[in-house]
Amino acid sequence: MAKITLVIDAMGGDRGPSIAVAALIRALQSFPETDFIVTGDEPRLKALLARESKDTAVDLSRVRIQHTSQIVQMDDKPGQCIRQKTDSSMRAAIDLVADGTAQGCVSAGNTGALMAMAYMYLKTLPGVLRPALITPVPNQHGKQGFLLDIGANPVCDAETLFQFGVMGSVLARELNGIENPKVALLNMGTEEIKGPDVVKQAAMLLKQSSFVNYSGFVEGSELFTGEADVIVCDGFTGNIALKSCEGMAKMVYEHFQRNLKTHWLSRGLAWLLYKRQKKSWAWLNPDQYNGASLVGLRGVVVKSHGNASANAFYSAIAHAITETQLNLPARIHNQVEKVLSEQH
Amino acid sequence: MAKITLVIDAMGGDRGPSIAVAALIRALQSFPETDFIVTGDEPRLKALLARESKDTAVDLSRVRIQHTSQIVQMDDKPGQCIRQKTDSSMRAAIDLVADGTAQGCVSAGNTGALMAMAYMYLKTLPGVLRPALITPVPNQHGKQGFLLDIGANPVCDAETLFQFGVMGSVLARELNGIENPKVALLNMGTEEIKGPDVVKQAAMLLKQSSFVNYSGFVEGSELFTGEADVIVCDGFTGNIALKSCEGMAKMVYEHFQRNLKTHWLSRGLAWLLYKRQKKSWAWLNPDQYNGASLVGLRGVVVKSHGNASANAFYSAIAHAITETQLNLPARIHNQVEKVLSEQH
Repeated sequence: MAKITLVIDAMGGDRGPSIAVAALIRALQSFPETDFIVTGDEPRLKALLARESKDTAVDLSRVRIQHTSQIVQMDDKPGQCIRQKTDSSMRAAIDLVADGTAQGCVSAGNTGALMAMAYMYLKTLPGVLRPALITPVPNQHGKQGFLLDIGANPVCDAETLFQFGVMGSVLARELNGIENPKVALLNMGTEEIKGPDVVKQAAMLLKQSSFVNYSGFVEGSELFTGEADVIVCDGFTGNIALKSCEGMAKMVYEHFQRNLKTHWLSRGLAWLLYKRQKKSWAWLNPDQYNGASLVGLRGVVVKSHGNASANAFYSAIAHAITETQLNLPARIHNQVEKVLSEQH
Repeated sequence: MAKITLVIDAMGGDRGPSIAVAALIRALQSFPETDFIVTGDEPRLKALLARESKDTAVDLSRVRIQHTSQIVQMDDKPGQCIRQKTDSSMRAAIDLVADGTAQGCVSAGNTGALMAMAYMYLKTLPGVLRPALITPVPNQHGKQGFLLDIGANPVCDAETLFQFGVMGSVLARELNGIENPKVALLNMGTEEIKGPDVVKQAAMLLKQSSFVNYSGFVEGSELFTGEADVIVCDGFTGNIALKSCEGMAKMVYEHFQRNLKTHWLSRGLAWLLYKRQKKSWAWLNPDQYNGASLVGLRGVVVKSHGNASANAFYSAIAHAITETQLNLPARIHNQVEKVLSEQH
């Protein structure tokens, strides 16, 4: 494996830098070929690094702290961050990838600001219209698919959706080892006449391309069935789909929990059942799906959930390292160039 | 209660007329003030009515069969149905409401065709831009909200979304008895700057109106929290949100079931737990939520799920009867007129 450098924006997220630093210490142990730069408040990060590494054998010389004085808040507006947060930990992370000091970065901060900064200062690959936020999605066969866009671009034209299909294919092939990944569009029905015009136009483009294995429309109910390896939609739709799933799961879980409180016997039965089934649910553990990638940029940018635990943040770091080692941006660039030459 | 007449399209849905007829026999017993017209294949319906009513005391003189020769198939295109399925059970049902013979109808048939026929032959109320498909949604407090549009209008302008908020308010007030229902827009974030322009424009219109208690944006994760009594979105978004929930629930349920098969002890524990919790889950029984209403039309039109059981179809009939007895179309008309006079 080639030596790589990854930047960690340690000040993003709801839970402060201790989460990022704890995850980093674990990553230092698992990924000996990776060096790290941590952006944020230097005195605080120094103290945290010393504390978290105390009982480990990690070599802190592999970590460099880059001091920044500002923090992008979760409710900051992206435009304001571009203008005013020029010495923020997030901006420094993006700049370090843009100037080639690092090959990738991870942030748990404000998604809109991260997207805006990456678009503005790291820039999209030649030919790529818009970067997209892509997330792995578990499916019932224990395999993994991808859903994009999940929030970077609320409204997309057909050409942009088509490119999302191309970029999603590259990820499914490179990260999941699927030879000829099936690409579908998320729609309100599987018949060709269904849905908004922009989705139908994107279907035409995907069908015409010899570089995409287009399999048609899927519905929201097929997000987890493994029907497709890559599911494409605009960022508004992807956000609504994922958050609706979250709401559904939460409603059922909370009702179940509330019920259990009513009697010791229910509690006991549920506990026994949980013990028996625990292992088989590991594939659904949300921690391992933490880390949505911003694809289509001239470097690796991974967004951790704002509320991530250290374990989940570690998963996001691991994703970023894998993407960096595969040189995913270059592979996406190659594929997009081929597709563009087919079109013109 | 005033005497009303309801039409049942008996030939729609995936499971044939026996479901509709079984539900009808139950409705004849529960709703003595309602007469019914059943549209479809007369010999077949006659036989089914005789069979299903055999051991009951229902008075079949309250049911009239209107013979039709055609059936709208689930994969027929709406436009073709308008032109070619002029003697279908669905078209006859809509026509009977349009000419005043009946006040409402129920169909489990092709949603697109039902929407197209209702729009074309029953027509919208004066001032209403588009009819919307609205569904009750359970929430964690054991109460009920409404979500619209869930598929009748894939793309909507801001004015149409605004009217959906007005119509949803009327339903929440009249059907759920909520004095001043909270109306929210489904969006990809709760901050005012988030989301597509059309959603932001609809927010402006809702905020300005004195006839709507607008409460802001909600995310997909808040569909079931009771945050709002009415949640408004375009039909594409509503369809994706609901079907994503369905997919999530199915994935978890099927994995749970598959796990249970592995050991008799798990099966036993789950069964005991189910017995203890069964009652408390009744509020989530999908049967009782069957029946989405097409609102904004000059009569009551209720769409049952295509795959509904007799119990679920019965729920759809009960919904239609309630809406008809309340004269919901007239109440929506009044409210829309008030809103229009405020705007001009």
